[in-house]
Amino acid sequence: MLNFNIEKLSEEIKPLVNRKIDSKTKPIGSLGLLENIATRIALIQNSTDINLKNPHIVIFAADHGITAEGVSKYPQEVTYQMVYNFLSGGAAINVFAKQHNINLKVVDAGVNHNFSDNQTSNDRFINAKIQTCTKNFLYEKAMTETDCLKAIDTGAKIVESIKNSGCNIIGFGEMGIGNTSSAAILMSLLCYIPIEQCVGRGTGLNDAELKKKVNILTSAILNHKDIEHSSLSILSTFGGFEIAMMVGSILKAAELKMIILIDGFITSSALLTAFKINENVLDYSLFSHQSNESGHKLMLDYLKVKPILNFNMRLGEGTGCAIVYPIIQSAVNFFNEMASFESASVSQHV
Amino acid sequence: MLNFNIEKLSEEIKPLVNRKIDSKTKPIGSLGLLENIATRIALIQNSTDINLKNPHIVIFAADHGITAEGVSKYPQEVTYQMVYNFLSGGAAINVFAKQHNINLKVVDAGVNHNFSDNQTSNDRFINAKIQTCTKNFLYEKAMTETDCLKAIDTGAKIVESIKNSGCNIIGFGEMGIGNTSSAAILMSLLCYIPIEQCVGRGTGLNDAELKKKVNILTSAILNHKDIEHSSLSILSTFGGFEIAMMVGSILKAAELKMIILIDGFITSSALLTAFKINENVLDYSLFSHQSNESGHKLMLDYLKVKPILNFNMRLGEGTGCAIVYPIIQSAVNFFNEMASFESASVSQHV
Repeated sequence: MLNFNIEKLSEEIKPLVNRKIDSKTKPIGSLGLLENIATRIALIQNSTDINLKNPHIVIFAADHGITAEGVSKYPQEVTYQMVYNFLSGGAAINVFAKQHNINLKVVDAGVNHNFSDNQTSNDRFINAKIQTCTKNFLYEKAMTETDCLKAIDTGAKIVESIKNSGCNIIGFGEMGIGNTSSAAILMSLLCYIPIEQCVGRGTGLNDAELKKKVNILTSAILNHKDIEHSSLSILSTFGGFEIAMMVGSILKAAELKMIILIDGFITSSALLTAFKINENVLDYSLFSHQSNESGHKLMLDYLKVKPILNFNMRLGEGTGCAIVYPIIQSAVNFFNEMASFESASVSQHV
Repeated sequence: MLNFNIEKLSEEIKPLVNRKIDSKTKPIGSLGLLENIATRIALIQNSTDINLKNPHIVIFAADHGITAEGVSKYPQEVTYQMVYNFLSGGAAINVFAKQHNINLKVVDAGVNHNFSDNQTSNDRFINAKIQTCTKNFLYEKAMTETDCLKAIDTGAKIVESIKNSGCNIIGFGEMGIGNTSSAAILMSLLCYIPIEQCVGRGTGLNDAELKKKVNILTSAILNHKDIEHSSLSILSTFGGFEIAMMVGSILKAAELKMIILIDGFITSSALLTAFKINENVLDYSLFSHQSNESGHKLMLDYLKVKPILNFNMRLGEGTGCAIVYPIIQSAVNFFNEMASFESASVSQHV
């Protein structure tokens, strides 16, 4: 079930892509990162005619048993309340998605709430609830491996259906009170980085609360020290349903050769898990921003990737993906629309 | 003539602005830089109802006598050829301005070319030629102080007319083969930083060419070592007509309480000169990006400002202003459109 057929990007057309970029009326290399982004998209689409079609951001929402230990500043009910907010259009991601005409989907991957017909009939809503909440991983596995695989498979199916609507660029975001705790442990175990370097303040813990969070997560890791060291085992023991669903989504989006926009710390922990399953996912992924959550920089360093923006944001919801979208568009636009030295009769350098 | 009445921003409404931002459905501070930008705009507009109206980017183009010394990779004719390109819509800035519905103006501040009726009748074109080219400042002052003041005044008038069209956000860019040489000397003399730390590769010099450029600029500074140390004197001795016009534009835009977008190294050298005339210009200026031109980071450090993007771009034309524009819009949009905890019935933190 973790068998995704993800092609490593071929560099075959790179000389053609470089020639097209260097023919544009600008000094060689002077559009910097925009040139790198355009090149990557050309390789993903294996074409010197590139485009962005029907962009989507998918927010996966789920609840976390670990919140019982007091690891978050906000109560668990905020998860479902924010789903309401996504559906009624008042959240940050709504504002940014609307600004850039990005299609927004909100997935109930495992929220501790019964959504009414009023919510579930909303065009944005996708009901994919695996369970109402993960178990408290301080004492037991967050989910069974069966449920974890089900979540991965569900994420993959959601992406496949979005791809079939004509989308070729997809961003992932999340909502789940307590999910920085899951993300921090995934990072620690998958990157072999001490947990205290992976844990951050989440939605705004103070020093004492942060220390408590580190202690709880350290105990949780210790309590499960005998689990198998595999992505699936680690993900089901410490993950969340939204994270597992993002893992499947990312793997499938890469298999389908979509451009993948990664949001902040939690989405990156899903990318990291997907990367451990199939390294080629990185070829299709653009990292929208470096989160202010302290572990994110270290995680990006581990993956040897550079984020596009560094705005000290730490909101999740896919907000980084939405904010960066017009920049991806600019990369595509200059590549497609700028005049060449020849067509504009501009002298080349001497 | 250098008497601009620029108000230092009042912080009076800041508590109201903070309260509005912190009432939004997101953890406190979690939109990072976007919150800072929204706050700045609210202070500039002295209101908790903020907006961006009729955005403009103005490209000032001019030629430089110093190009006779071989300081650039490209021949001087590229300046007017790129003006043609701006007018016919093929340059990078055209692509990005179109993407974001930004009104583009191209000013002939002193280009060594007679534009035909075909060009001058273009809606984008503003004829404000002071001279056809600056003098070669290795041997003589680039322009007279009278012409320098005329350029500053012309820039101010152009901005005033744009403001009268209902614009409240304006970005400045430039085109002028050789103008990194002017910018480097302005920086060196105004910031007291050795010239070799201010000189970069411009459009793409190699090591030997860079060394030659440093030597020429060092000689130029030495040849004028007895000039008065005033902004006007330094600007007229080493500047360009496009830079002088931007100095006036920036001062006037700040006087008119417009949001000012600063592009890369050369535009920043104009901002720096304007800053030396009236420090309050900084309050109205947003620095779109850190250029790959090596002196830019040092200059921004000197001004104690942080650029929004760091994309290794070094194209000029106002491209940084255009690329960053949707991010400014996002800041305004979240501030105006996001729901509050109360309106969305989301629980606040504990």
